[in-house]
Amino acid sequence: MVKSVKLAATAHYVPERVVTNDELSNVMETSDEWIKRHTGIETRHYALRENTSDLCAKTALKLLKEAKISADEIDLIIVATITPDALTPSTASLVQQKISATKAFSFDISAACAGFVFALSTAEKFLRQGKFKHAIVIAGEVNSKMMDFKDRTSTVFFGDGAGGVLLSTCEEAAQEAFVAEKLVTTPAPEVIHSGRIPAMTEVCSESYPNLDAFYQNGHAVFDFVISKVPQHIKDFLYANKFKLSELDSIITHQANLRLIERIAKELSLPLKLFAQNVVYYGNTSSAGIPIGLDLVLKSKYKAGLTLLTGFGAGLSYGSILLDLSHFGE
Amino acid sequence: MVKSVKLAATAHYVPERVVTNDELSNVMETSDEWIKRHTGIETRHYALRENTSDLCAKTALKLLKEAKISADEIDLIIVATITPDALTPSTASLVQQKISATKAFSFDISAACAGFVFALSTAEKFLRQGKFKHAIVIAGEVNSKMMDFKDRTSTVFFGDGAGGVLLSTCEEAAQEAFVAEKLVTTPAPEVIHSGRIPAMTEVCSESYPNLDAFYQNGHAVFDFVISKVPQHIKDFLYANKFKLSELDSIITHQANLRLIERIAKELSLPLKLFAQNVVYYGNTSSAGIPIGLDLVLKSKYKAGLTLLTGFGAGLSYGSILLDLSHFGE
Repeated sequence: MVKSVKLAATAHYVPERVVTNDELSNVMETSDEWIKRHTGIETRHYALRENTSDLCAKTALKLLKEAKISADEIDLIIVATITPDALTPSTASLVQQKISATKAFSFDISAACAGFVFALSTAEKFLRQGKFKHAIVIAGEVNSKMMDFKDRTSTVFFGDGAGGVLLSTCEEAAQEAFVAEKLVTTPAPEVIHSGRIPAMTEVCSESYPNLDAFYQNGHAVFDFVISKVPQHIKDFLYANKFKLSELDSIITHQANLRLIERIAKELSLPLKLFAQNVVYYGNTSSAGIPIGLDLVLKSKYKAGLTLLTGFGAGLSYGSILLDLSHFGE
Repeated sequence: MVKSVKLAATAHYVPERVVTNDELSNVMETSDEWIKRHTGIETRHYALRENTSDLCAKTALKLLKEAKISADEIDLIIVATITPDALTPSTASLVQQKISATKAFSFDISAACAGFVFALSTAEKFLRQGKFKHAIVIAGEVNSKMMDFKDRTSTVFFGDGAGGVLLSTCEEAAQEAFVAEKLVTTPAPEVIHSGRIPAMTEVCSESYPNLDAFYQNGHAVFDFVISKVPQHIKDFLYANKFKLSELDSIITHQANLRLIERIAKELSLPLKLFAQNVVYYGNTSSAGIPIGLDLVLKSKYKAGLTLLTGFGAGLSYGSILLDLSHFGE
C-alpha cells in the first residue's frame, strides 16, 4: 500500500457551440422562460462532429499540462461515460491514442451520472496497491447524440462536456486526498435509460442492430433523489465522524438547479456551498461533478473538505469525501 | 489490506438455441467445411429474446448457489461487456435487480475481449482494500444482436454466453488466488469496432441516434495477437519469476481455435494445456475466459497454476496468474 493518493490536477473541456433556450424553442414546444423556471438552465454546449473521446482527450491534455507530467508516465486511464464513441473499443483507449499515452492501460466504466464517483474510486484502488504512479480519470459525455428532439421533457436538460482529474501516488501523508467513500446501487431501470439494444427474436432475422434514444421519468427521478440522496449524505458523514458544517464544498451531480436547491434545503445548508455549473453547461451526466471540481479549484474559493455526490441511472449513487486543503502544494 | 482474496465459485451459462455452421450457410455464402477449417468452430449459441443481463443473472444465481452465499451478502457486482442491454443503466445494475442483491453497488467495464481480465483485476482491488467481503465478476455477451448477417467474415465466429466468478476475502493465506497480473492497451481502433455512435453534425439535425454493426479485420487482429500476446505471456511470467512449464492451465480469449493453436505453437506448449470452448460456443468475446475457467474447474482436470490471458478490441490485452491449487477447499 502506498502512503498517499493525491489530486495532482483537475481540468474540464466543453465544446464551443453554445445552444440557448431560445434556439431549442425553435425546434420543440418550449420557451426560455419555462426552461429557466423549471431547471435553472440558461445554456448548454453541444459537440458537433466532436465525439466523447475528443472532449476527454482535450481534458486529458490539460491535465498533463497542469500536472507537468508527460503522457508516457500515465499508467491507467479510466473514462466514465454513458455516451461512448462506440460499444467497443473503449472511449478510454481512444483517449489513450489521442494523447499518446504509450505505457497506459485503459477501460471505460458505465455507472451513469454516478460514473465519475465510481471511476474515481476504482482508480484510487489501483493506485493504492502501489504498483502504479499516475492515473487519469475522466467523465465525458456527448449527450446531444442520444437525444430525441421530439421529447422536450428530457432534451432541454442536457449538454455535452468532459471533466477529469490526474491522480498520483506520493509519500507525503498531508497530500492524501481520499478521506471516505460510499457507493450504492438501487436498481430501477425503468426511470432512466438510454441506448437500449434488444436481443434478436429469431436467428438472423434482423440484419442490423438498433438502439433507442435517451428517456427519463423526470418526476420519478426527482422523487427518488430527494428520498435517498440527502439521507445518504447525512448517513455517510455520520458513519465517518464528519459533520455537514465541516464541509467547505459540495459538488453533486448537476441534474438541474432546482434539484440542487432542494438538496441544499433538505440538508439545511446554504446554496453557495454547492457547485452550480448546470446553469451554463446543462446536465452533462457524469461530467458535471469533475467539471464542478475543476471550477471550484480554479476559482478563488477554498476547496478544503470537498464532498462529491453522484446519482443517476441504475439507479446508482455514491459519495467520496476529499481533503483538498493541500491541493496544488 | 485483507489477507487473501479467493475464488469462491465459478459458473457459466449459454442460451439454449444452438446455431450450426449449416444453418449459417443458409443465410450467407459459407459452409460447415470452410468454417471448421478456418476457425475450428462447430456450433455457437444465440440468445433469442434473452439479453446480456439475463445471461449474466443466470450465471450469478449459479455462483451464489455454488458458494452457498445469499444475494444480500454481495457487496459489489461488475459486469464486463461490449453488448450491454443499454448504454445506461449498466447491465450490472440489471443483474443486481434480477438476483435481488439488495446491498451491492454495481457497474460495467468495457475493455472488449480482455474485459473479464480487466474486471477481475478491478474487483480484486476493491476486495483487497478490506472493506468488502464478496464480489461477483461476470463477463456476458449477446454478440448476435450486433452482427451484420451480410458480413460472413465476422459473423461465423461469434456466439452468446456468460461466465463469471464469485470472489471472497478470507484469512487463510493458502486460499489466495491472485499471484500476478499485467494489463496493457495498445490503441488500434480501426481493426475491431462495434456500435459506433457518431456525434451530430448540426444542432438538432438528427432526431434519433444510430449505431453500426460489429466489424473486425480478421487478418490484422490475427497478426496483432501473434506479434504481441505470446511475447507478453513470456515477459509476464519472467517478470514474476515463473516458467511456462509450471503452468497447469492456460485460458486465453476464445477468438478461434486456429489462433489458440498458433499461440500454443509460439510458446512451444501442448495444446491440451489450453481451454478450447470456442469449438462449441464460438467466440463469446469477454465471456470465453470465465466460461473456460468454469469448465476447467468443473472437469476432472486439476486447475492448479492457471494463466488467464485476454486480448481484443482496443486493442487491450492482459494476463492474470491465479493459484487455484486450493480451490473448493
